[in-house]
Amino acid sequence: MTYCVALCLQDGLVFLSDTRTNAGVDNIATFSKMNVVEVPGERVMVALTAGNLAVTQAVMNAVLESRQTEEGSTKTLAQVESMLEAVELVGNAVRHVYKTDGPTLQAQNVGFDVSILLGGQIKGRRMRLFQIYSAANYIEATQDTPFLQIGEHKYGKPILDRVLNYRTDLFDGVKLCFISMDSTLRSNLTVGLPIDLAVYRRDALKLDVKRRIGDDDPYFRHVRQKWSDSLRQAYQALPRPEY
Amino acid sequence: MTYCVALCLQDGLVFLSDTRTNAGVDNIATFSKMNVVEVPGERVMVALTAGNLAVTQAVMNAVLESRQTEEGSTKTLAQVESMLEAVELVGNAVRHVYKTDGPTLQAQNVGFDVSILLGGQIKGRRMRLFQIYSAANYIEATQDTPFLQIGEHKYGKPILDRVLNYRTDLFDGVKLCFISMDSTLRSNLTVGLPIDLAVYRRDALKLDVKRRIGDDDPYFRHVRQKWSDSLRQAYQALPRPEY
Repeated sequence: MTYCVALCLQDGLVFLSDTRTNAGVDNIATFSKMNVVEVPGERVMVALTAGNLAVTQAVMNAVLESRQTEEGSTKTLAQVESMLEAVELVGNAVRHVYKTDGPTLQAQNVGFDVSILLGGQIKGRRMRLFQIYSAANYIEATQDTPFLQIGEHKYGKPILDRVLNYRTDLFDGVKLCFISMDSTLRSNLTVGLPIDLAVYRRDALKLDVKRRIGDDDPYFRHVRQKWSDSLRQAYQALPRPEY
Repeated sequence: MTYCVALCLQDGLVFLSDTRTNAGVDNIATFSKMNVVEVPGERVMVALTAGNLAVTQAVMNAVLESRQTEEGSTKTLAQVESMLEAVELVGNAVRHVYKTDGPTLQAQNVGFDVSILLGGQIKGRRMRLFQIYSAANYIEATQDTPFLQIGEHKYGKPILDRVLNYRTDLFDGVKLCFISMDSTLRSNLTVGLPIDLAVYRRDALKLDVKRRIGDDDPYFRHVRQKWSDSLRQAYQALPRPEY
């Protein structure tokens, strides 16, 4: 499994993804699920992927690298002119991979399983964040619901539901993503360290932070420990019921 | 869906269950999922149920009310001599309902879906807590893992994973169950108020608390509000990363 979360806040975008893949519990590996297209001053895009690894890699290959076809060379995320064109490019790649691999997967009883979070900004255009489904259709994050999750999303959802909103500060958003990820890591073995973080400040047209975070990262360790301590203090501070 | 959680702590047992049932999102209703057998001074048992409502009711009917069969009258939870006999009685009832209703359900593509948490104590015997599966087999909570959950369990698991242990005070356990339930209520529409709480103190042989809690319960309202406030303060108190 996988856990990826992305925020679309007033001040910018936050992306966080784990790196664990597994084919059964006895075959686990580390693969980054974060793909970055960055041309400083011109465009920044980040795509987080969940699902069958062969499918997600095929989709990302199709949108990151141009190929020659009968109609000429295919477009890439580095060439599209808007985030809307970007999400449609990814959707078309999902459709294409489904057409190629779907029947064979189905014949072997393997689901065609892919979901992608795609966010970013191109110079002169709006910053946007999308979620693309296996069926290649997509939704966009809004001010009402400024976060999107894919993969093993339930463990890390309550903290976002409770306190995140569109006006949350960008680095408070990073903290909340860390807490959401840590809750998932602790409760589900199929989500694992290290994790990949990317932070984009609106209109910056370059990433503020792009960082791999392992178990030895002092800040992440501090957040994990401090958060558990805070929860313990917070529940102990609640009064006892009078029942 | 449903969310039920039960703790088996050094000091006693805590049971908490929601009351929402649904057949599609446009057909929801309120049914208690908590069944209590209490003979003060002699025995206390609480069973929480999740799954197909007709199946769980059939199972509970079978173990709560005696019927005449060719072999004589069937036993009930009020008559068994140990918690182990109780969990086996429930398991046998699951098997019996599966035999009766399983083929018809399968023919109509409805899963045979039932899971039950059963805990309690009989005079002179150990206090125990079990989880019974659809296949009628079961597991028991231990000091290493003193909580069991059925239904929509993921949202409310992180708080229990982080801070609950076997030596947690009984009413701290109640608070943690409330927090776990509240996280689930907020994030998943198929789990709904009111909720049913039962608290049993080891060797008391009567329930300490048996209470239905609605949205108007002042203590539960306080916990909900205070917990969200505490989380907000806790994440804001975390230092900003230096990335």
